[in-house]
Amino acid sequence: MDIATEIIAVDTKADFDVVDITDRVEKLVNASHLEIGTVTLFAVGATVGLTTVEYEDGLVEDLAELFERIAPVAMEYKHNERWHDGNGHSHLRASLVGPSLSVPFLDRRLVLGQWQQIVLLDFDVRARHRQVFCQVIGRKDESRKKESAD
Amino acid sequence: MDIATEIIAVDTKADFDVVDITDRVEKLVNASHLEIGTVTLFAVGATVGLTTVEYEDGLVEDLAELFERIAPVAMEYKHNERWHDGNGHSHLRASLVGPSLSVPFLDRRLVLGQWQQIVLLDFDVRARHRQVFCQVIGRKDESRKKESAD
Amino acid sequence: MDIATEIIAVDTKADFDVVDITDRVEKLVNASHLEIGTVTLFAVGATVGLTTVEYEDGLVEDLAELFERIAPVAMEYKHNERWHDGNGHSHLRASLVGPSLSVPFLDRRLVLGQWQQIVLLDFDVRARHRQVFCQVIGRKDESRKKESAD
Repeated sequence: MDIATEIIAVDTKADFDVVDITDRVEKLVNASHLEIGTVTLFAVGATVGLTTVEYEDGLVEDLAELFERIAPVAMEYKHNERWHDGNGHSHLRASLVGPSLSVPFLDRRLVLGQWQQIVLLDFDVRARHRQVFCQVIGRKDESRKKESAD
Repeated sequence: MDIATEIIAVDTKADFDVVDITDRVEKLVNASHLEIGTVTLFAVGATVGLTTVEYEDGLVEDLAELFERIAPVAMEYKHNERWHDGNGHSHLRASLVGPSLSVPFLDRRLVLGQWQQIVLLDFDVRARHRQVFCQVIGRKDESRKKESAD
Repeated sequence: MDIATEIIAVDTKADFDVVDITDRVEKLVNASHLEIGTVTLFAVGATVGLTTVEYEDGLVEDLAELFERIAPVAMEYKHNERWHDGNGHSHLRASLVGPSLSVPFLDRRLVLGQWQQIVLLDFDVRARHRQVFCQVIGRKDESRKKESAD
């Protein structure tokens, strides 16, 4: 068993951004030289979340409308009254989605569906420089090595 | 420390299905011969999610109504305009719930509450054959062995 | 690699409570003597969830209003008809938020943002005694030791 930690840095756009980070996560899993394990992803910050989605332009627009229905920009928020940063809705949306995601991998491949991408959802009202911690825990597949030696 | 990966296959019904997979996860944890650790569950596909719930008929109906309020079937979705598969609402619901769940276990038992079951929520508009990856990471409790040898 | 499991006990208030458990999780990570790893948190019970938020009074009020919009207390729920415990809305809110959260740590520090706290959300209609399982998986940073020996 071994463990490796890397950071994926993402520059996001203001007022809702959906960034597909699947390829970057897959590269980190490959670079770890672990064959079986789990990658734990964690988005740093209280106005950003992680989930999976079929990443295509239609659903990106649909997600924007979904979160506008759940926590509208124009609603009055106590957070905005106190802190005047105008991102009360961003906080609520991020807390609902959550900051962490755990994805197993086998044979160095994430077990995602064909149309299932890992995305960072940035809900903040201004462009941000984001960090996603990627922690890979796993082992080299020794049983597999034994098999191939037979 | 060791790691084991298994797949739970689930056949689901169309138009919203809630499947209790608790017993099957518990069996996999037992079969792993690990005593302490975490099982990471991941649902493959972009229209399916994992969470916990008190699994009983009333709440299954209440969940159906909750998701119909959050992302109604009859609403217009850009995803449907582009791809004509009529499951825009399924994607939004699944992204909100999320595909991964991590449950610790002690003495080979999941630390669930008495009325807390692990459920797969299938939001798709057609019956599906689903896979949930279950990755068990943990160790045998050697301290416990020492105690019992005293 | 090693693993340690502890329980954080939390007494909550009825009708929605937000409890910041960040300091207690950080202490458990420190007590584990592991330097790099992931802490998996799991809230026991079907009417409680875990997420992160900027913990301040304004957002605590905004969260209460968010969940009242998503699953109102006064709505009719099949769960309440059958079981008469009046917490149908609590169950739905908890299932949406989810019971598990995984947070990596480096140098014994959780990789949280400056304004990002780990919170337990209790949605139940009565005061509860809650348990959050904290499972720390990781290793001492041997590469770091080698560096400092140079």
